[in-house]
Amino acid sequence: LNAPEESPIGIFDSGVGGLTVVQAIHARVPHEHIVYFGDTARVPYGSKSKETITRYALENADFLVKQNIKLLIVACNTASACAIEALQKYNMPIVDVIKPGVRAAAKQTRNGRIGIIGTRSTIHSNAYVEELKKYDRNVFCTSISCPLFVPLVEENMTEGLIPSLVASQYLAPLISKHIDTLILGCTHYPLMRKTISKIMGDQVRLVDSASETALEVEKTLESYGLLRRSITSSRISFYVSDDPIRFTQMGSIFLDVPIEHVEIVCD
Amino acid sequence: LNAPEESPIGIFDSGVGGLTVVQAIHARVPHEHIVYFGDTARVPYGSKSKETITRYALENADFLVKQNIKLLIVACNTASACAIEALQKYNMPIVDVIKPGVRAAAKQTRNGRIGIIGTRSTIHSNAYVEELKKYDRNVFCTSISCPLFVPLVEENMTEGLIPSLVASQYLAPLISKHIDTLILGCTHYPLMRKTISKIMGDQVRLVDSASETALEVEKTLESYGLLRRSITSSRISFYVSDDPIRFTQMGSIFLDVPIEHVEIVCD
Repeated sequence: LNAPEESPIGIFDSGVGGLTVVQAIHARVPHEHIVYFGDTARVPYGSKSKETITRYALENADFLVKQNIKLLIVACNTASACAIEALQKYNMPIVDVIKPGVRAAAKQTRNGRIGIIGTRSTIHSNAYVEELKKYDRNVFCTSISCPLFVPLVEENMTEGLIPSLVASQYLAPLISKHIDTLILGCTHYPLMRKTISKIMGDQVRLVDSASETALEVEKTLESYGLLRRSITSSRISFYVSDDPIRFTQMGSIFLDVPIEHVEIVCD
Repeated sequence: LNAPEESPIGIFDSGVGGLTVVQAIHARVPHEHIVYFGDTARVPYGSKSKETITRYALENADFLVKQNIKLLIVACNTASACAIEALQKYNMPIVDVIKPGVRAAAKQTRNGRIGIIGTRSTIHSNAYVEELKKYDRNVFCTSISCPLFVPLVEENMTEGLIPSLVASQYLAPLISKHIDTLILGCTHYPLMRKTISKIMGDQVRLVDSASETALEVEKTLESYGLLRRSITSSRISFYVSDDPIRFTQMGSIFLDVPIEHVEIVCD
C-alpha cells in the first residue's frame, strides 16, 4: 500500500473554471498528484439553487473520495458558497475558495471597504459577507452578481468593447461605494482582470482566490503531515461528466500545462 | 377513465425557453391541457454533447409520459436537433421545433438562400441543414452559433448597445451570404428579434418556429383524432428540476399567462 502522502489531491468544479485553481496549486506544490473533476454535464452552477448545488457537490465529492484522495478542494466559488457545510461530512481536510479569498482581502484592505463580485447563487448565499464579518465586524461589504462574465470568458471575449461595456454596466454601483479591494468571487473572473481593473481604477486591488487557495493547500497538507516527499514526477488526471472534447479545448484558456488525457464519468 | 383527448399535451425544454412555444400552442389550441417540464437543474443544453442531451431528453420524456400525455412536444431546439431519433422509441406522436421552422423557411425563401442561428450543439448537429436539404437539395444554407444570445436574454438584455454589438459580431458572416430568410433556431432568440432584424435588414425574413410548431400541433392532434372537444377551461401545469422561484420570475419574460403553480421534480 502507498504511503498516505502519495495519494492525490482531489479538486472539483462545475466545469473548466477550477483549472485556474489547479494551475496555482500545481505551481505551489508541483510534486502533488492531482485528480480533477469538472461537472461539465450540469455546468453552470451559478444560477441554480442551494439545494441542487449541494446535491451536485456531494456527488462530485463522492467520486473524488473514491479516488483515494488525501485532501478535497472545492475549486468552484458557487459550490463553496452553497455546499461547504454539507461537505464537512467527509472525514477529510477540505479547502474551499471563499475563505482564502476573504483572508487575502481582509489583509489587503486599508479603508475596510470591500466589494465582491460572483455568480447569482454565490452573491445570493451571502457567504462572502458572512466570512468577511468574522474577520472584522465593521468591514463594509458590497456585492454584485455578474451573470454574463462566465459566458463572455467561455466565448473568449475578455477584452475589447463588448466586455468593457458589460463590465461597466455591472460594476457601476461599486464605483460610488469607494471600495479599495474587490474580490473576484468566481474562477472565471481572473481572465477578465484587465477589463475589470480598467473600470475600477488602479486604486482598487483585485483579489483572485487561486494563489491564496494554493497557499492554504500547502499549509493544510503540511499541518496534516500529508505533503508528498517524493520528487518523482506528479500526475494530473482529469475527469468530466460530459464529452471531453470541449473541456480539452476550453481548458487551454484556463491552464498552461497541456491537458493530455480526460476521461468521462457517467452517473 | 377519461377519454384520450382529455389527456394533456406534454412539452419539455431545458429551462424557460420552451414557454415561447407554450404561448403559441395555447393561443392556437386554447382548450388543450398542457404539462410543461423545464430541466432547470441541468440547463443549458446548448454547449453539451449529443449523448448527454439525448440522455436528458429521454429522462424528461419519461417524466411526461408518466403524466399520461397524448402528444409529446420537444420545445427545445438543441434537444430536437440532437435527440429526436432517440425519442422515436415512444409509442406516441411527437412534434419537434426543427421541422416546423424548416417548413416555414422553405415556404418563405425566394432566392433559396437560408441562414440558421442556434446554440453550439444545434448548429454542430447539422439537423437544420439536413432537414432543409430534404425540401430542396439546392437550397443554400449557412449556419452560425450565437452562444451569448441565451445569457443575454436571461439577463433581459435584448435591446440596446450591448446586444446590438454582440449580434453584429455574430451575424457579420451572414450578411455577405445574401440570405433572404433567417431561422431563429433557439427558443430564446425571438426575444432578440428587433435587434437581430436591425442588423440583418428588412429584406431578411426572420422565422420563429413557435407559431409554425403550434400549427403542427393542431394538425397532428386532428389527424390522430385527439383534439380536445370539451370547452371547459384548460389547465397548464409546470414542473421543473430546480427551485421554482427563478423559473417563475424568468418565465414571465417568455409567457404572457401568469405561471401560478410550479412543482419541483427531483431525480
